[in-house]
Amino acid sequence: MRNDPLARLRRAAEARHAAGLRRTRRSRGPDHDGLLDLASNDYLGLARDPRVTGAAAEAARVWGAGSTGSRLVTGSTRLHAELEERLAAFAGSPDALVFSSGYLANLAAVAALGGRDALVVSDAGNHASIVDACRLSRSRVVVTPHRDVEAVEAALAGRPEEAALVVTDAVFSVDGDLAPLAALHDVAVRHGALLVVDEAHSLGVVGEGGRGAVAAAGLSASPYVVRTVTLSKSLGSQGGAVLGGPEVVQTLLDTGRSFIFDTGLAPACAGSALAALGIIESEPDLPARARDHAVKLAAYCAEIGLESNDPAAAVVPVFLGPPERALDAAARCADHGARVGCFRPPSVPPGRSCLRLTSRADLGPGDLEVIQRALRAVAEMGARP
Amino acid sequence: MRNDPLARLRRAAEARHAAGLRRTRRSRGPDHDGLLDLASNDYLGLARDPRVTGAAAEAARVWGAGSTGSRLVTGSTRLHAELEERLAAFAGSPDALVFSSGYLANLAAVAALGGRDALVVSDAGNHASIVDACRLSRSRVVVTPHRDVEAVEAALAGRPEEAALVVTDAVFSVDGDLAPLAALHDVAVRHGALLVVDEAHSLGVVGEGGRGAVAAAGLSASPYVVRTVTLSKSLGSQGGAVLGGPEVVQTLLDTGRSFIFDTGLAPACAGSALAALGIIESEPDLPARARDHAVKLAAYCAEIGLESNDPAAAVVPVFLGPPERALDAAARCADHGARVGCFRPPSVPPGRSCLRLTSRADLGPGDLEVIQRALRAVAEMGARP
Repeated sequence: MRNDPLARLRRAAEARHAAGLRRTRRSRGPDHDGLLDLASNDYLGLARDPRVTGAAAEAARVWGAGSTGSRLVTGSTRLHAELEERLAAFAGSPDALVFSSGYLANLAAVAALGGRDALVVSDAGNHASIVDACRLSRSRVVVTPHRDVEAVEAALAGRPEEAALVVTDAVFSVDGDLAPLAALHDVAVRHGALLVVDEAHSLGVVGEGGRGAVAAAGLSASPYVVRTVTLSKSLGSQGGAVLGGPEVVQTLLDTGRSFIFDTGLAPACAGSALAALGIIESEPDLPARARDHAVKLAAYCAEIGLESNDPAAAVVPVFLGPPERALDAAARCADHGARVGCFRPPSVPPGRSCLRLTSRADLGPGDLEVIQRALRAVAEMGARP
Repeated sequence: MRNDPLARLRRAAEARHAAGLRRTRRSRGPDHDGLLDLASNDYLGLARDPRVTGAAAEAARVWGAGSTGSRLVTGSTRLHAELEERLAAFAGSPDALVFSSGYLANLAAVAALGGRDALVVSDAGNHASIVDACRLSRSRVVVTPHRDVEAVEAALAGRPEEAALVVTDAVFSVDGDLAPLAALHDVAVRHGALLVVDEAHSLGVVGEGGRGAVAAAGLSASPYVVRTVTLSKSLGSQGGAVLGGPEVVQTLLDTGRSFIFDTGLAPACAGSALAALGIIESEPDLPARARDHAVKLAAYCAEIGLESNDPAAAVVPVFLGPPERALDAAARCADHGARVGCFRPPSVPPGRSCLRLTSRADLGPGDLEVIQRALRAVAEMGARP
């Protein structure tokens, strides 16, 4: 008789608890329980917009609550086709494939475009879904230092594999900084590689009219760029998509496991993402408002001695070091009326526990005062131990 | 200068095309374009039920179009908590964790409960999401022949690893047959392993009141069983869940990458899944109706000489061999008014291309006549070449 398998799980949970790494579910009310939301990824404030929620309701009524099957069986409705056309047109891409989550879009893009005959070069700061995608690709993977174009070029130049992908977040999900996309594209093209860019935190926030970081870098027309996006952040909905040319889309249709074997996105989510896209097109100043508020938050952090970053989009980290300190800081923010994100390993590297503030286009002057009071309370916690 | 990376994708696409393995998107209308739907996984016919679509609309109105963040930041609403309680109560499990897709639920369950110190034993017929989950687990993986309990026991008995998981679909997604759950549980417990069971195609269809195959096998109370379910099949919505005890749930909360790093399920989907669950509880004969119709379809296949399986749930395969033959058969069904699934590699092993018929609780006598005419047309294609 072997040991009780549950004892192994209990031991590991106790070790995580002792290290300050235990997680708990806390469910919120519709209004964030009266707290100011500086933690969500609802960068344009569209998740609660009645035009967006109304579109979700109408799509469920017309098309059903679920898509009823995988995309290649019964899960592709004309609503999905319209969303794919509109997303591609918005971003200036030839085509788009919609997924039920951005996580699954990344898994399919990297795994299907990679393979045993390809090298995948991945930034050390990339999102967990990209890391998992690299593992699923069966490719040799080289992880390069954060935003290090020279390291990317060295990996590409020295490879024995004919094929290669370079994979990067456009805006990094916790640090909030921007990838050097133009330089990465230059290196990728010179070395016969595709560049896969995750626009999760840049679509709707970065670039003219929120068309994203690839568009802002002038790379929308490059056939060597593949973009992944989420529908769950600026678009206030759920889901993801891969944007690319015909070769890329056909590869994913035929071999993208997390496309082929997953139920298609629910019609309500497709409908609300479409409505949000229409709002962004008709109110092109929304993205700049989200960015401006982020710059104000980061400037205030600097003013009161908190370590942050220059925000490229709407994400503003406040680095605090050990996990317990980040938890304390998040609790102080809540005491002062602000809900902020609290990121600990494995979400961030050890020693880099932090708060993650997200700005929104619809923050008002009173909101900025709330967060300033909260940040002062964090600064008063004193220097790092 | 290396070769054009798009040329590699084009060459591979041409090879797939020549092998009959090219996929195309075809988007459908709200009513399946006038065809009888025998292809979806809407086993109880609830995706279009006004009580279910109304709940989706109401949830979007109250809670927003998206959950706005990951489950441990802002993506857990009280609606998610209610869904987790109700799912756990329905299935007789201590707790449940809801995901934005069943694919992601499987990735988290196997990857978080596995690990380098564990062996994972996986049935050769398991769903792609379980195969990917095995790859992500970093465990040594032994793939055992389909439904082979002795092979599972041999793998467990001979392992050097202290920890182990046995992973199986309850009802296999294409073959539609049932895993030997009681025997697998017996072997797992004797050898100190957890048993992970994917109830995607059994929840709402198998067992008393549709409580699933684990419940039907009398294993709901076992602390060594972990179940994964989808909300996108019998429940007519989108999403997935992992059902298990406190050790399992805490492990996933702390270390489940596709739980921690994915946006929470959209409120509309949580709301519609809750409504569907209520309907199944109040109409406990629905699951048996779906099963009875599947038995009738399989019996008709046998009667006219088409190779099928004894259906354990609502999935009825019709095995045809080469991919072109399965495509022809699906086209004949459409000509006769029935939309059926057509499965080719990599969805099935080479040489096992098939139609996949799915029964629904709400099929009427006229519907069964439509599919019988369609199946006769398939049988008239003649014997396998």
